[in-house]
Amino acid sequence: MSLLVVGTVAFDAIETPFGKTDKIVGGAASYIALAASYFVKDIHLVSVIGDDFPQSFLNTLTASGVNLEGLQIKKGEKSFFWSGKYHNDLNSRDTLETQLNVLETFNPVVPESAKEVDFLMLGNLAPAVQLSVINQMRKRPKLIAMDTMNFWMDIAMPELLKVVALVDVLTINDSEARQLSGEYSLVKAAQKIFKMGPKILVIKKGEHGALLFHKTEVFFAPALPLEEVFDPTGAGDTFAGGFIGHIAKSEDISFSNMKRAIIYGSAMASFTVEKFGTERLVGLSQTGLDERVQDFIDLVQFDIQLA
Amino acid sequence: MSLLVVGTVAFDAIETPFGKTDKIVGGAASYIALAASYFVKDIHLVSVIGDDFPQSFLNTLTASGVNLEGLQIKKGEKSFFWSGKYHNDLNSRDTLETQLNVLETFNPVVPESAKEVDFLMLGNLAPAVQLSVINQMRKRPKLIAMDTMNFWMDIAMPELLKVVALVDVLTINDSEARQLSGEYSLVKAAQKIFKMGPKILVIKKGEHGALLFHKTEVFFAPALPLEEVFDPTGAGDTFAGGFIGHIAKSEDISFSNMKRAIIYGSAMASFTVEKFGTERLVGLSQTGLDERVQDFIDLVQFDIQLA
Repeated sequence: MSLLVVGTVAFDAIETPFGKTDKIVGGAASYIALAASYFVKDIHLVSVIGDDFPQSFLNTLTASGVNLEGLQIKKGEKSFFWSGKYHNDLNSRDTLETQLNVLETFNPVVPESAKEVDFLMLGNLAPAVQLSVINQMRKRPKLIAMDTMNFWMDIAMPELLKVVALVDVLTINDSEARQLSGEYSLVKAAQKIFKMGPKILVIKKGEHGALLFHKTEVFFAPALPLEEVFDPTGAGDTFAGGFIGHIAKSEDISFSNMKRAIIYGSAMASFTVEKFGTERLVGLSQTGLDERVQDFIDLVQFDIQLA
Repeated sequence: MSLLVVGTVAFDAIETPFGKTDKIVGGAASYIALAASYFVKDIHLVSVIGDDFPQSFLNTLTASGVNLEGLQIKKGEKSFFWSGKYHNDLNSRDTLETQLNVLETFNPVVPESAKEVDFLMLGNLAPAVQLSVINQMRKRPKLIAMDTMNFWMDIAMPELLKVVALVDVLTINDSEARQLSGEYSLVKAAQKIFKMGPKILVIKKGEHGALLFHKTEVFFAPALPLEEVFDPTGAGDTFAGGFIGHIAKSEDISFSNMKRAIIYGSAMASFTVEKFGTERLVGLSQTGLDERVQDFIDLVQFDIQLA
């Protein structure tokens, strides 16, 4: 089924304990779209770049089935740029530089071809942009999922809450869930967040896995312990892409299928962190993907027979 | 089968965002022995207290099947005392006060009745004390498990490594695994630690669950997302007690049984954090325990059929 992905397509410069990159391609929508492309082919992108962006990456997206009609290319302007440095434990990072560039005036336009998509994934972006996209849809998608971050909670909470009220699935990390709800217990946080709108809460915990909450049900997906974790950038976006991709492919929004979607999202994310940027997400084989999913199945397998 | 538990029996004063206690009963061996008592009844304790310790708690231990022959009671001396304050996220804490008291001169004596136990659990204590206990065993236990912490890595690494070389199972947290091995990747950390002696590495991650490593195999057990997390003190010790308790009960040291042991340990620990101190660990019913284990089974259940 059709999927609309909204988010940044951008440049990152990344420093981790294992290496350093110059400007490479990144951005939430890049990761989401690439990850989702392993599940569905009818993908539409709404984003903005400057005329400094490499055509080769746009070709990669197109080859992956991503329709770029909704991608604005601003003549004479520069693409969004972020640079950051990860600490030794890879769980925290400092932002070294943020250049909004084209994002400063971004006014998203959903093309006609994408106004009736079945699934909508709002990547991390200004809440006003996310809201504008929802408002442009001609019919309500079967499922709207939204990613966001503490930055928007700090500077734009009222707008953020407006978007949160309209979505079905919210994906945030554990400290953001605590910040948004004011509750330490993630169980209580989920119940408070459900009252804000979403029916499903996905809490991303990086190397500690992810939690899926729906009503009083909860599911815990591990992250795969990896021999090499090279660069965590984009892991959360890749996770979201695998998640929404699997749901769009299966057209099944039941809780048991969301659990599968979490596993697929986690599997996709486990590839992303193995290399800098989007490199590892391009050209994965179905066999490679299946093997990785099997690793997740094996990882949590145990057999207890209660009397 | 028989189990020997070595560790502190002590007083704690705890402050969490949810409340504050005066001196209450704590100590690694208290938690380990109580948790293990739900699985086996032939438990021996080696520890030391002052004559300030409440007889009622010793009666609780005895009633739980714990043989106190190896518990030294020092006349005119005071029990070990620790006080600490947890930060808002409960994942970190500050030590406010440590009074070694009887621990300062603790010379453990394994009673004759405990010198041929089948299983030995060395709770977190000075490595020299742990080593002394191993050396006093008349025959090597079927399995020796050991808990320790960064404190000993900081001040007594050479002694610690001597003990590590002699045990089968090492339980530490993720940052300790990184400190001990000098590796960020937990997969690599496990391989390095195996070279130090242990065949099994259990990495405790608190609210993020636990990892079990053996050769190239890995198992991930979640922690149960709880509505109320009141006091994390003793969770790791309780986990170790449930873990070794299940293994001692089943007499099975296969990897698949260790996975079950991790789940039982996690289930026991999920009770401990619901109240201050050891309170929640006393008087649990088999039904309550089974229901909690079932929660863990449900928590990670998903169904993916790969082609």
